[in-house]
Amino acid sequence: MAEQTGKINKRVVIEGVTPEIDSGRYPIKRVVGEKVVVEADVFTDGHEAVSCELRFRQKESQTWTAVPMQALVNDRWTAEFTVTEMGQYRYTIHAWLDHFKFWAQSLVKRLDAAQDVGIELVIGANLVGEAAARAEGSDAERLALYRRVMEGGTAESIQAALSEELALLMYRYSDKDSGTIYDKDLGITVDRERARYGAWYEFFPRSCWTQDCTHGTFADCEARLPYVAGLGFNVLYLPPIHPIGHNHRKGKNNSTVAREGDVGSPWAIGSELGGHKSISPDLGTLDDFKRFMRQAAEFDIEIALDIAFQCSPDHPYVKEHPEWFRSRPDGTIQYAENPPKKYEDIYPFDFDTPHWRELWDELRSVIEYWVEQGVKIFRVDNPHTKSLRFWEWAISNIKEKYPETIFLAEAFTRPKVMYFLAKIGFTQSYNYFAWRNTRYELMEYFTELTKTEVREFFRPNLWPNTPDILTELLQVGGRPAFTTRLVLAATLGASYGIYGPAYEQCVNEPMAPGKEEYLNSEKYEIKHWDVTRPDSLAWLVSRLNSIRRENMALHSNESVRFYQTGNDAIIAYSKTTEDLSNVILTVVNLDPDHMQSGVLELPLEELGIDPVQPYQVHDLLTDNRYIWSGSHNYVELNPNPLPAHVFRVRKRVRSEQDFDYYG
Amino acid sequence: MAEQTGKINKRVVIEGVTPEIDSGRYPIKRVVGEKVVVEADVFTDGHEAVSCELRFRQKESQTWTAVPMQALVNDRWTAEFTVTEMGQYRYTIHAWLDHFKFWAQSLVKRLDAAQDVGIELVIGANLVGEAAARAEGSDAERLALYRRVMEGGTAESIQAALSEELALLMYRYSDKDSGTIYDKDLGITVDRERARYGAWYEFFPRSCWTQDCTHGTFADCEARLPYVAGLGFNVLYLPPIHPIGHNHRKGKNNSTVAREGDVGSPWAIGSELGGHKSISPDLGTLDDFKRFMRQAAEFDIEIALDIAFQCSPDHPYVKEHPEWFRSRPDGTIQYAENPPKKYEDIYPFDFDTPHWRELWDELRSVIEYWVEQGVKIFRVDNPHTKSLRFWEWAISNIKEKYPETIFLAEAFTRPKVMYFLAKIGFTQSYNYFAWRNTRYELMEYFTELTKTEVREFFRPNLWPNTPDILTELLQVGGRPAFTTRLVLAATLGASYGIYGPAYEQCVNEPMAPGKEEYLNSEKYEIKHWDVTRPDSLAWLVSRLNSIRRENMALHSNESVRFYQTGNDAIIAYSKTTEDLSNVILTVVNLDPDHMQSGVLELPLEELGIDPVQPYQVHDLLTDNRYIWSGSHNYVELNPNPLPAHVFRVRKRVRSEQDFDYYG
Repeated sequence: MAEQTGKINKRVVIEGVTPEIDSGRYPIKRVVGEKVVVEADVFTDGHEAVSCELRFRQKESQTWTAVPMQALVNDRWTAEFTVTEMGQYRYTIHAWLDHFKFWAQSLVKRLDAAQDVGIELVIGANLVGEAAARAEGSDAERLALYRRVMEGGTAESIQAALSEELALLMYRYSDKDSGTIYDKDLGITVDRERARYGAWYEFFPRSCWTQDCTHGTFADCEARLPYVAGLGFNVLYLPPIHPIGHNHRKGKNNSTVAREGDVGSPWAIGSELGGHKSISPDLGTLDDFKRFMRQAAEFDIEIALDIAFQCSPDHPYVKEHPEWFRSRPDGTIQYAENPPKKYEDIYPFDFDTPHWRELWDELRSVIEYWVEQGVKIFRVDNPHTKSLRFWEWAISNIKEKYPETIFLAEAFTRPKVMYFLAKIGFTQSYNYFAWRNTRYELMEYFTELTKTEVREFFRPNLWPNTPDILTELLQVGGRPAFTTRLVLAATLGASYGIYGPAYEQCVNEPMAPGKEEYLNSEKYEIKHWDVTRPDSLAWLVSRLNSIRRENMALHSNESVRFYQTGNDAIIAYSKTTEDLSNVILTVVNLDPDHMQSGVLELPLEELGIDPVQPYQVHDLLTDNRYIWSGSHNYVELNPNPLPAHVFRVRKRVRSEQDFDYYG
Repeated sequence: MAEQTGKINKRVVIEGVTPEIDSGRYPIKRVVGEKVVVEADVFTDGHEAVSCELRFRQKESQTWTAVPMQALVNDRWTAEFTVTEMGQYRYTIHAWLDHFKFWAQSLVKRLDAAQDVGIELVIGANLVGEAAARAEGSDAERLALYRRVMEGGTAESIQAALSEELALLMYRYSDKDSGTIYDKDLGITVDRERARYGAWYEFFPRSCWTQDCTHGTFADCEARLPYVAGLGFNVLYLPPIHPIGHNHRKGKNNSTVAREGDVGSPWAIGSELGGHKSISPDLGTLDDFKRFMRQAAEFDIEIALDIAFQCSPDHPYVKEHPEWFRSRPDGTIQYAENPPKKYEDIYPFDFDTPHWRELWDELRSVIEYWVEQGVKIFRVDNPHTKSLRFWEWAISNIKEKYPETIFLAEAFTRPKVMYFLAKIGFTQSYNYFAWRNTRYELMEYFTELTKTEVREFFRPNLWPNTPDILTELLQVGGRPAFTTRLVLAATLGASYGIYGPAYEQCVNEPMAPGKEEYLNSEKYEIKHWDVTRPDSLAWLVSRLNSIRRENMALHSNESVRFYQTGNDAIIAYSKTTEDLSNVILTVVNLDPDHMQSGVLELPLEELGIDPVQPYQVHDLLTDNRYIWSGSHNYVELNPNPLPAHVFRVRKRVRSEQDFDYYG
């Protein structure tokens, strides 16, 4: 093998580098300001010492920045750096035999054994001389001076040889060129903060109307903004806003026959009025849309659009580029299918077409078109049913020019494919949260997401519902289930979202028992929502989003830890900032039908709590405060009105010793 | 990233391939006749079907052999093949969109839904037509026929479309060229059986003399062969047989001053009489050595030599190639050191010398010299103190020409370095067995060695003692400890060895308390062993080696499973053949001082035992037989005379129903 690597006679070995995704094939993800902690096994033959450094750079830069690595145990080394700019970074490792470090370590041992070190000092002085030849300016002069002093062979020579300054200079001028450079440059995609942390809200613009029997417009959406802002959301995601096809249009409840006045599914994109770069006139004009985006920005809300790469039979592409679709032997175009199911209102693109380059370019240009209109967040519809390598290419292409873009993959598909989409570039991902209901399922899944390599590339965005997903738990669990799933999503997920107002109004009637489709789904008809309903969970949504804003611990997922409660119906977990200044402890009763109680077991010292002092837990949902002491405390939660605590842990309870006059 | 890979528009993804060591940088290991089971994640976008095949070839062959892979769950696929020749193999994976398979699966669903399939049959017939164009000869004709039948659009067309013959033909003539080939060819080093399974014995030839006060010769060694053969060993390993240096020769007990008549350490290689390619005249001539090897072969014993790449100050290399050693400022050659310890009788090679190519070539030629004399097994002394990349190069170079060579790494060093030596080519490895004494330590270590990726490249050879290692347990545990460690080594390790006759005679006096060196170590003086001593463990060694020979379950390590005993002083484990026809259950009392008992818990069905029938366990050490029933059985072991059972599990106890006349 050696002859294949060009590494022959490189005595230092670098291996076991983490993070490294699929042999370095895919980048890890970070947001601006986050740390990258790198570890590696670095060793050489024999007893000699190695030194190594972590190197990083922005992709387009030619210059590496080096950080010295520190030895852990068992030949493992570590170093870290912080990414400060959006875009692509690279990192790698450089390790070398550090003859001087080894010499100095040996010198100490020889001195301890009272050996004569005369010749050793000459050997050391020679090493210093070699370094002096590699150095320049005053460093070279200092090294030359050290050399002379060491050659003296006196007590002063020994002192000089072991001085801190010399150690630093000798590290700086090590013969690094003889070392080993790790054979891969590993990648990092650095996004803006919203890639990691954000609360999303989805609504159908056409349902935002306020008078009877009309079609909502962007102007109506503007009127709804104060409501969404009051809920505290950062991102407002709209289903497709393009013209909707007529041919095979779906009627209410997904009926294959549309009746007069049926508005069709927004995902059946394209008509004689335009395609993926057009806006449905029923919603308004491009200017209306831009005005709506500006208004949203006033409320600190960013608009996200849907990228659904499929066409209605009426889409202009179908006439202009029949070569982008698959033909059937009868000359018709192949509609979407999942046999025996047929979706005749949808034509998928044929990613195997010989004209795939043109197709890819056009689809990429759709994304860029909307970026140029100011949209920087995209929810991508079913990306797993399009060529995976297309996404890898298109996303990297777009992000190269617009590193601020965010792509959320709506891929409710098999686990390997879901992760693969994240590896090849999707910023965030829908995931299996909606179907993880028990304590065990939640713990297992969020441990996988936050404590394994997955966390390096996969950022979950937790949605308890979507227009496509009304889970059985919500169907049968009613309002308590809506409450618990909301609290779980908002506290387990640095990014989470709901499809409203259906969610906050606890809409939970399925099209049929055992189906996850909504009855009278908004996908096929215009709804009217009274957002002022007093029984709405809007207050809780608003409260949770405030809590999220105010508590940095909830802005990321990696710190999550689960705790014993002695009751499988009660889940408890903390999130903490690195310095433990912010500790959020969430306790949720997962049983929508019964009061549940348990004894919560906390590792106090790991949470920064003095185990012999009482401490306060402050329920940020209710503003109730409890004084706890010790690691075991009783909790009791009723499904109604509120089956959850979101505690901020206050580490210390004031006592008489806090009075000025005490002591 | 896509632009870097050339994989653009390849719709099938292959990842997560196992086994794959360090991104494919190092080969896995097998012996002739062993299976290679490969798994991979293979998937594509959308609903389409993929097919994939495992490809393998001998390295020098240009032709791949393909094995269809079978789907497991979760997008994971598997296939296996058997390696039949020594040398290097390669394997990789090829996956493609299988349009016909998907079409046929869809057809069944459409038929089940009573849909009209007229056009579908035309689509299928077209796929068959495309395959016919790729086929030749009678296959092409059959496919063309199938096409015509399918175009008929009759019930017969459907039958033809779903026929097994067509499925096979369509698999064979799939459009594989449009598929994805995994981007790595992964390597396999295939050795002969002795690389995996063998019992080793180490003795000092010079101690094999039979008259008083002489130096043993190869003729004396020949006389010792019947004894070694009686013990049942396969490999007889000799410490270095080269001339020993005089300068700074070590005296008895590692004294830095040799006295008149002191013979020195065989590892201080080289004198005016020659170096690494010479034989000490005290032992005999090359012809004597060859005769000894031939005699050993008569007893089915293979001779292994020591490769110790270091020199005494008198080695011819020192004069002829001073540039291969490091000089000190006073002009002397740098002796070996581990500061503050000095080994002035040893000069290490300087692997950083500018003349390293010549040095590497010469050292490689040493190995080849002995291979040409007929030696095919080498125990390599302290390989971790020589350039690691030298070994990678030298071993692959030697094995390319002599694939039957076996290299055992004597690297008692840090874990990462120990594993690395195995990755870069060492066939077998000394390891930490000698210091794994408790039940927990043994279970943990052998789980790591046999149930993780380590098993793909690291073959442990278990030595309870060596001339360098007399463990504290042997020092304090006496004969029961020698017995348990022997049973553990022989049953946990498909390869194991002892340094004798010290081992079977339970020699356990250390040079000093807390030291692992033997008192009056044979490394520095000639011993005389009375191998007929009645208190020797020779009978047990012999018995264990017979058991090993007769029970295939003990010829490999991967099947090892540990069991609960309810007593930490008792360890129990099984090894089994794949078909469960041979089940060996070993139970050992690890406490050298007290009788211990426990209740052994066996998963009967996994061992192929009918849980409602009694079964027999036959102790192959004592020939005692016990009838057990159920999963829980009592065991009791005394340190003396025999603190272990090595049971062969006989699955069924004969009963009246076994008589011919019954039933």
